[in-house]
Amino acid sequence: MGKVNIARGMRDILPTDMRKRRQVMQTIQRVFERFGFAQLETPAVERIETLMGKYGEEGNQLIFRILARGEAGKQGKTDLALRYDLTVPLARVVAMNQQLELPFKRYQMQPVWRADRPQKGRFREFYQCDVDVVGSENRIAEVECITIVSEALLALGFKQFVIRLNDRRILRAMVEQMDAAERETDVLVAIDKLDKIGEAGVRKLLLEQNFTESQVDRLFYMLNTGNIDDVDEILQELKQIQEWAYAMGVSSERLKIDFTLARGLNYYTGPVFETVLTDANIGSVSGGGRYDGLIGMFCKRDIPAVGVSLGLERLITIMEERNMFDETNGNTAAWITVFNEEMTVDSLQVASRFREAGINTVVSMRKGKLGKQFKDANKANTRWVVVIGPDDKQAGLILLKDLQDGTQRSVSVDEAITLILE
Amino acid sequence: MGKVNIARGMRDILPTDMRKRRQVMQTIQRVFERFGFAQLETPAVERIETLMGKYGEEGNQLIFRILARGEAGKQGKTDLALRYDLTVPLARVVAMNQQLELPFKRYQMQPVWRADRPQKGRFREFYQCDVDVVGSENRIAEVECITIVSEALLALGFKQFVIRLNDRRILRAMVEQMDAAERETDVLVAIDKLDKIGEAGVRKLLLEQNFTESQVDRLFYMLNTGNIDDVDEILQELKQIQEWAYAMGVSSERLKIDFTLARGLNYYTGPVFETVLTDANIGSVSGGGRYDGLIGMFCKRDIPAVGVSLGLERLITIMEERNMFDETNGNTAAWITVFNEEMTVDSLQVASRFREAGINTVVSMRKGKLGKQFKDANKANTRWVVVIGPDDKQAGLILLKDLQDGTQRSVSVDEAITLILE
Repeated sequence: MGKVNIARGMRDILPTDMRKRRQVMQTIQRVFERFGFAQLETPAVERIETLMGKYGEEGNQLIFRILARGEAGKQGKTDLALRYDLTVPLARVVAMNQQLELPFKRYQMQPVWRADRPQKGRFREFYQCDVDVVGSENRIAEVECITIVSEALLALGFKQFVIRLNDRRILRAMVEQMDAAERETDVLVAIDKLDKIGEAGVRKLLLEQNFTESQVDRLFYMLNTGNIDDVDEILQELKQIQEWAYAMGVSSERLKIDFTLARGLNYYTGPVFETVLTDANIGSVSGGGRYDGLIGMFCKRDIPAVGVSLGLERLITIMEERNMFDETNGNTAAWITVFNEEMTVDSLQVASRFREAGINTVVSMRKGKLGKQFKDANKANTRWVVVIGPDDKQAGLILLKDLQDGTQRSVSVDEAITLILE
Repeated sequence: MGKVNIARGMRDILPTDMRKRRQVMQTIQRVFERFGFAQLETPAVERIETLMGKYGEEGNQLIFRILARGEAGKQGKTDLALRYDLTVPLARVVAMNQQLELPFKRYQMQPVWRADRPQKGRFREFYQCDVDVVGSENRIAEVECITIVSEALLALGFKQFVIRLNDRRILRAMVEQMDAAERETDVLVAIDKLDKIGEAGVRKLLLEQNFTESQVDRLFYMLNTGNIDDVDEILQELKQIQEWAYAMGVSSERLKIDFTLARGLNYYTGPVFETVLTDANIGSVSGGGRYDGLIGMFCKRDIPAVGVSLGLERLITIMEERNMFDETNGNTAAWITVFNEEMTVDSLQVASRFREAGINTVVSMRKGKLGKQFKDANKANTRWVVVIGPDDKQAGLILLKDLQDGTQRSVSVDEAITLILE
C-alpha cells in the first residue's frame, strides 16, 4: 500500500503527551465544576449555513467544508462543515433548547478545525476550552470567569500572571472623544498592538490610516492619564468586579484595570479581560468578556452572556517547555515477569491481585529470558518488577524488585501490595 | 438569522447526559489503565487515500469527504476525510512511529463519523472505544482483552453477560470440510445470523446461495456436535485462553467456547470473541479478536495484533434504560444565595471557602427574592442552600438549609463545610 502519511497540519497525540494533556484538562475541569459549570459537547459537524458569515470573510475561507451526499456532492456542493469555534455552537444549542434553565453555566473542551497554513506548533486541529455564563447580567458572572482563570492557572502551577481588565464601553467613549466613532474597529485593532509595537508604532499606524495628529494625541492622553470623560459609572463597575474577585481570593496584584486592553473580537459589549504570563513572552493565555448580542443571534432576542477562553494548547506548550509535568510514568506501577510458559497462570494470578488493589500492572508478553523482561520494565519506566519462580511459588512468595534503588526481597503478594501502595 | 438547526444525524450532549457519558468513559478508562494500556488520540481528519478501500465498497460510500482547498476544491475535489473507525488510524500511527516499543498497548475513545441513514438512536457521529495489543503473538494479549471486557462490564454494573470465544481457524476448517473453502465469507456471514434467524433460517439462506444440502448438513453436524477434524491444537489454545482468563478472575460461566461465533469482519486470523448481555436482547456489546494481517498494511510487513471494541453507545443506552446511573446531581453540592447587592461580597467569600474545601458551589446570580433563589437551587437538584443575612454576618454565622430533609441551622462556615462533606 506504499507510504502512508498523516493529513497536513494534523497530529497524533501519543500516550506520553496524552497523559500530559489529560492532566491539564482534568485540572481545569475540576476548577470549572467547583464553580458549578457543567460540560457540554456539540458535534464536530455543523450545517454550513450555521457557520458561514459568523467569522468574517477570512474565517469563511478557513472553514473545512464537507461534500454533500448524493447528486449534489457530485457537483461539488457542500452542505456541512467542521466546527470552527465553540461559541457559535453554544448559541445554536441555546436557541434550540428553550428548556435550559438560565443562567446556563457551561464549559466545553473540544477540538476545532481551521484550514490555516500549518506552522511549527500550529495545527489545523486544536482544542479550545471555553467557559460561559449565558443568560445573566449579574456582574458575578464576570467575576466568576476571572476567578476561574486565576484558579485554573494556579492549579496548573503558574504563579506569575496578570489579568488585565477593561470595558468596551470605556474604549467606545475614548473613540467618541477622539471624534472617530465610525472608525471604532480601526482604533481598537491599533490599540491591541500596543504590547507588540509600543506607543510610537501605534501612533504611526493610526496616522498612516489618516487619523489626524490631534486625534492620536487625544487618544494617548486618555490612555496614559486615564482622564476620560463620562466613564465614572463604568469605572465603578470595573472596581466592583475587582472587589468581588478579591473577595473570591484573586490576589490584587493579579487583577489590574488597564485602559489599553482592547481584545480584537468586536462582539464584546461590556467588561473584557485578558491574562498574560508576566514571565513569558507568548501573548495572552486567556481572554474573554461580556458579549450580550451574540448568543441570541439564532433566537431573535438578545441574551446576555459572559465567557472566557483558556489557551489550552499554548498552556500545554509552556508547561512542556518548563517541565511542569509530573515526569513519572503515570500509567504503570508494576511489571510482572513470566518465568516460563507453565508458570504463566501464576503470573496472571498475581497481576490480578495487584490490579484489584488498584495497582496499574503489566504482565510481560515477551517469551524468554527474564533479563530482557527486566529491560522492558526499565524502558517503560516501571518502578516495581515481580518474579515468580517455581521455588517462590512453592514457598508462597514472590520476588519484588525495586528498580529505583535496586533492592529486592521475597515477600507474600499482600506484603508486596502494601509496599507498592506505600 | 431565522431558524437554526443541528446537522442531520448529529446530536448535542447536554450536561446531564454528559455527566453520564463521562462516568462510563472514566470507569472503562480506569480498567484499561489498570492493565497497562495507554491512551492514544488521532486527528478527526485523515488523508482520503488512507481511508478509501479499507472498509469495503459500502464503507467507501459512508465516508464523509472534505473539500480540497484552493482551485481543486472549486472543481469539487476532495483530499481529506473524517475518521471512520479507530483501527485504520492505529495502523497508520504504528507505521509512522517505528520508535514505539512493542507490544504497543493502546486504547482510544474518540468519535467516528459515518454518513449512514440516521435512525432513532443511531447517529452519524458516535464514540468508539477500542483497546488493542499491537506486536505480540502471546496469548496473554487475547486473555487481557477478554478480561478487560469482563472487568469493564462489572465495573459499570452489568452482571448477566457471556463472552463467547471461537477461532477463525476452526471456522476455516469447517468451511474446508464442507468443501467451500473459496466461499468462506458467505458461510461466515450466514453463521453470524444464527442468533437472529436460527438454524432453519441459516439453512435456507445457504441453500438459496447454492450451497448443496450435503454441504449444509455437514456444517450443522459440525456446529451442533463439535466434531470437527484437525482442530485439536487450536481447541487446546482456546482452552488455554479460558484457563488463563479464569486465573485473571473471569468467572467460568462468563466465558464459553462457541463454534457458532463468526464475527462478520473478515480481517480476523485467530481467536475471536464477542460479549452478549444475557438479560437484554440487543446484540453484542463488545467484540474482538486477533487480526495479524491488518496493522502491517501500511508497513510492508505483518504485525500481529489483538483487539477488542466496547460498544460504548449501546452500553450507555442500556444503562440509561435501566437507570444504572447515579441520579444525584454530580456537579453542584451547595447553592449560596445573595441576600442583597451590598452583601454580595459576603456570599462570594463563603463560596470561595466552600470551593477551597472541595465543594462544588454555585452563587446565585438572580437578583431579588430569596424565595426564588431557593427555587433555583431546588430545580438544580442542589442539596445545601446557604443564606447570609446582615444578622448572621454580625454573629459570624451562616444559615445552612438541607433541602433533602428541610432542616436548617445557624453555623460557622467551618461547621457548614464539615456538615456538607460528611
